[in-house]
Amino acid sequence: MTSRKVIELFYDVVSPYSWLSFEVMCRYRNVWNVDVKLRPALLGGVMQGADNKPPATVPNKANYMVKDVQRLATYFDVPMTFPSDPFEVMFRKGSLSAMRFLTAVQEQEKDGDKKVEQVSRELWMRIWNRDKDITEPASLSEAAKSAGLSDGEIKDLLESYTSKKIKDKLKNSTQEALDNGAFGFPMFVCHVDGKPEMFFGSDRFELMAHCIGEKWLGPQPHKSKL
Amino acid sequence: MTSRKVIELFYDVVSPYSWLSFEVMCRYRNVWNVDVKLRPALLGGVMQGADNKPPATVPNKANYMVKDVQRLATYFDVPMTFPSDPFEVMFRKGSLSAMRFLTAVQEQEKDGDKKVEQVSRELWMRIWNRDKDITEPASLSEAAKSAGLSDGEIKDLLESYTSKKIKDKLKNSTQEALDNGAFGFPMFVCHVDGKPEMFFGSDRFELMAHCIGEKWLGPQPHKSKL
Repeated sequence: MTSRKVIELFYDVVSPYSWLSFEVMCRYRNVWNVDVKLRPALLGGVMQGADNKPPATVPNKANYMVKDVQRLATYFDVPMTFPSDPFEVMFRKGSLSAMRFLTAVQEQEKDGDKKVEQVSRELWMRIWNRDKDITEPASLSEAAKSAGLSDGEIKDLLESYTSKKIKDKLKNSTQEALDNGAFGFPMFVCHVDGKPEMFFGSDRFELMAHCIGEKWLGPQPHKSKL
Repeated sequence: MTSRKVIELFYDVVSPYSWLSFEVMCRYRNVWNVDVKLRPALLGGVMQGADNKPPATVPNKANYMVKDVQRLATYFDVPMTFPSDPFEVMFRKGSLSAMRFLTAVQEQEKDGDKKVEQVSRELWMRIWNRDKDITEPASLSEAAKSAGLSDGEIKDLLESYTSKKIKDKLKNSTQEALDNGAFGFPMFVCHVDGKPEMFFGSDRFELMAHCIGEKWLGPQPHKSKL
């Protein structure tokens, strides 16, 4: 008996490459014979825990990544627009509140992760499309509202997302990413017949498909261009 | 009138990801409607010039890369075997002599780059398949012999590869890579209608194909598995 394949996606909404991977995985969850498990975690914690430096500290790499991620976003059909000050957004403001909020959404959602998916997307739309804040409670509340959560649900989330329970849950997910070998996001852990295989980045889908015995049809599987 | 597309591949035989890209480009030169220009250059010089650090200085990243490159080598069908001490080979011994030698091969070869291709492959086979030296003149000579160069050609190469002319040519290629935005290898510069587009890494072929208006058929286009 072969158990169903599982792909865990560790991501942070501060990371544009994570957004690309997230959208591709959401498109493939109904194409590949897999369960996709969304694993919101803290990129800053992973970088610190792995003793890694943001790639943008090398000027040629920073210039390339701006170009690369925009080229990929177009090819992947993800509506990405760079914020006016990416460094302010990514490094000074960061994503701690947003990732705690998403962790609370996941804790609240009993059945599946449709709400985690939708709130994640709304947070990415704020930071990586509309250049809007994702650190203030009002911002998180707006994202949840756009994602279709009820006022009651949002009220509960705003009460719980700074609780010790949620903080610990996010810490644990981040630690689990590190334990799986993370040094950045996005990170995938594929479980096929009980064996975990880790993949880093938004550029390993073709290899991942090969490793799990599925077919890569490009970033838009419903209108395959390959 | 549309001029023929050109893809320059900047690479160093010390880099296993460069080998993967090199083999794929050699397979695609007769599949895509492009001219492939091999551009041997010095990875160490690029890292220093771009103020970049080897990725393997982050332990989780080093562990991942060993796994990643082996998984990719299998999928790309490139016969890669890790040397017993990759750090000795990559960082202490390095590739300066080998890249000067390849530069001399390119200088000697008047028509096309078949010999540069074959000597590059033999050097990769030595370092990344048979765990053999690529720093001594005898090693370079053996690689050239395996690549089918004549004794006369090899004698000339051994006389010229430490000359100022060749040293300067390698420096210039390395500087040109930096001027194109390099921060590591492999690096591709695609010229389509006079506009250069830079791609880094062995994981941008699908995007590159899309950008130059060609089709990605996987790393083995002659037996496409996609």
